[in-house]
Amino acid sequence: MRFHTRKWVKPEDLNPNGTLFGGRLLEWIDEEAALYSIIQLENPKTVTKFISEIDFQSSAKQGDIIEIGIEVIKFGTASLTLKCEVRNKMTRKTIIMVDRIVMVSLDEDGNAKPHGKTEIEFVKNRLKE
Amino acid sequence: MRFHTRKWVKPEDLNPNGTLFGGRLLEWIDEEAALYSIIQLENPKTVTKFISEIDFQSSAKQGDIIEIGIEVIKFGTASLTLKCEVRNKMTRKTIIMVDRIVMVSLDEDGNAKPHGKTEIEFVKNRLKE
Amino acid sequence: MRFHTRKWVKPEDLNPNGTLFGGRLLEWIDEEAALYSIIQLENPKTVTKFISEIDFQSSAKQGDIIEIGIEVIKFGTASLTLKCEVRNKMTRKTIIMVDRIVMVSLDEDGNAKPHGKTEIEFVKNRLKE
Amino acid sequence: MRFHTRKWVKPEDLNPNGTLFGGRLLEWIDEEAALYSIIQLENPKTVTKFISEIDFQSSAKQGDIIEIGIEVIKFGTASLTLKCEVRNKMTRKTIIMVDRIVMVSLDEDGNAKPHGKTEIEFVKNRLKE
Amino acid sequence: MRFHTRKWVKPEDLNPNGTLFGGRLLEWIDEEAALYSIIQLENPKTVTKFISEIDFQSSAKQGDIIEIGIEVIKFGTASLTLKCEVRNKMTRKTIIMVDRIVMVSLDEDGNAKPHGKTEIEFVKNRLKE
Amino acid sequence: MRFHTRKWVKPEDLNPNGTLFGGRLLEWIDEEAALYSIIQLENPKTVTKFISEIDFQSSAKQGDIIEIGIEVIKFGTASLTLKCEVRNKMTRKTIIMVDRIVMVSLDEDGNAKPHGKTEIEFVKNRLKE
Repeated sequence: MRFHTRKWVKPEDLNPNGTLFGGRLLEWIDEEAALYSIIQLENPKTVTKFISEIDFQSSAKQGDIIEIGIEVIKFGTASLTLKCEVRNKMTRKTIIMVDRIVMVSLDEDGNAKPHGKTEIEFVKNRLKE
Repeated sequence: MRFHTRKWVKPEDLNPNGTLFGGRLLEWIDEEAALYSIIQLENPKTVTKFISEIDFQSSAKQGDIIEIGIEVIKFGTASLTLKCEVRNKMTRKTIIMVDRIVMVSLDEDGNAKPHGKTEIEFVKNRLKE
Repeated sequence: MRFHTRKWVKPEDLNPNGTLFGGRLLEWIDEEAALYSIIQLENPKTVTKFISEIDFQSSAKQGDIIEIGIEVIKFGTASLTLKCEVRNKMTRKTIIMVDRIVMVSLDEDGNAKPHGKTEIEFVKNRLKE
Repeated sequence: MRFHTRKWVKPEDLNPNGTLFGGRLLEWIDEEAALYSIIQLENPKTVTKFISEIDFQSSAKQGDIIEIGIEVIKFGTASLTLKCEVRNKMTRKTIIMVDRIVMVSLDEDGNAKPHGKTEIEFVKNRLKE
Repeated sequence: MRFHTRKWVKPEDLNPNGTLFGGRLLEWIDEEAALYSIIQLENPKTVTKFISEIDFQSSAKQGDIIEIGIEVIKFGTASLTLKCEVRNKMTRKTIIMVDRIVMVSLDEDGNAKPHGKTEIEFVKNRLKE
Repeated sequence: MRFHTRKWVKPEDLNPNGTLFGGRLLEWIDEEAALYSIIQLENPKTVTKFISEIDFQSSAKQGDIIEIGIEVIKFGTASLTLKCEVRNKMTRKTIIMVDRIVMVSLDEDGNAKPHGKTEIEFVKNRLKE
């Protein structure tokens, strides 16, 4: 799994108990899954269709730095299935693990649209072509 | 299921495709589950432990009004299991359905703490006693 | 008065003195009045025209759960007058009381538009028809 | 009346109808009244106690620049009464006018505390002394 | 230099160390430079092109009131160069000083567009004409 | 230069002209520089001291995905000097380039504190030791 995006847990990200608000964490995961899929499928109209069980393994506190990892599980015809892990950057302790996030590529009318991709591509290679 | 909290989908809640950002929706669900549990368990230190599969059935657009419903599935010793549905207030069309959200009551040290509750209570009844 | 929407007071909602920021509270009230009116008048272009005196009776602190109640005072030709109370969910203590919020239904050009409503309707009844 | 603070109406400040969200405007007014009072009363623990009728005279749209004016109406023993006007910076058209905002100076325990002020002071003069 | 806009440092503006988040401060400066330029150049399509060195001289903490000052350095053909200082309102201590912020006036296609301005104008004078 | 954090440009990140708000971009850069320094210097109390000239080379629009790159220029006694580039993830076009961001490590009293670091370290290696 490759970890890219990092977040610094600030006061605005806390719940009233002073730990990272779970809703904020889910927001960050959904954004990362969306942008990762858009990059891979080269279709900005890619949306979240399904998220499998989410187990909150540990929490984070103000000042912690977390990183979000994404791994491709499967390329479907119009979908892309991802696995996601959020962990503490300094200790590598897992905060949350989501086994499957299914993203779907849509056409202008909002219907599923085949994306024609079968493997991970790196933007630098696309640009070289 | 009883629906309480309502949200008005504003520009700040949209993804770049102009529909309700899924991450924002998850944030709203997590907040509702947390505050519902705190009311029932009478313990402000109640946290999200587990969220079952999330199926995004339909979307919402700017100006839509949505409502969030919560139903108790089970009272555990230190936990409370909830079911959650988000739907469009005007059409009653389901946007998202989550079968199980497990909230856990914690003590000062962050360990699970029995809450002693076995059924839904209404605040008005507590205050009358 | 019926109370629907609930809010969990988070760090991002506090003023520098550590109590609920009054401006945030007014923002929540205005949103609730707007969405309530849109539901009743069935016109998304419904705006706040007037708010009567606001008396801040008590405050709220981080972690408190508040609920916002709305009651219809009067159906005008193009307007809807509401009463609003915000109270602490756990203690039922009133935080703020606003006697009259006048919402106005507008047409495409921004002019007052008669809404034809004379009493509260429930969405479930509309859908059954 | 002196106008100080200016705001640039951004997408995040709009309601779903595409005009300035009234709740955001009230938030801005409350913040300006609070900071103005803190400067005058030299007590950071100064809170909003009362806001008189609010008449929404005109609206603002994305990209508009607005300015917030404050004028002192009366120095009470522990209170300060302000008048507030928000207007469009470019056209000077009034958006909102609030005749009285009563701010109260509090002591450590949250009780009203006499502030000993009877007239407007300028920070530059205080610093020169 | 004239100081207009004021900000009240709230919990949502802090970094995890409890002082004013530098990024928030830069956001405030950029907004103030933009709206000041739009007022002077009478062109809403005015963008930030260049910001000179930024020296963080002191910090601010929760509850502090800061004010943002802008001074015109030079009117170019399509540009406007500003100087900006942010200081603590109560102590007048400088927090940040930026010698040059170059704003550029654009036409519909995003190209530099001569603004025809050579000196500061006050809106009240424009309206009197 | 290594690019980690990615952002998806959403409606809430736009200025009124519909392009990425420069202030938001500066906020993202400051957060990335802070968290990168905290990881390297292993001191959470690391603050931004200086940012060199910022040239806005191109803009971004709603739906764009951007990535933020950081490179270490120099390890000082108590400081760390970084170079930062923000670019469009899909086209690799540079949006902003900042040659030097000086971060300083502080002790409890807010004074510069030697960090003892002289080269980049990877967290995975620290954890293996």
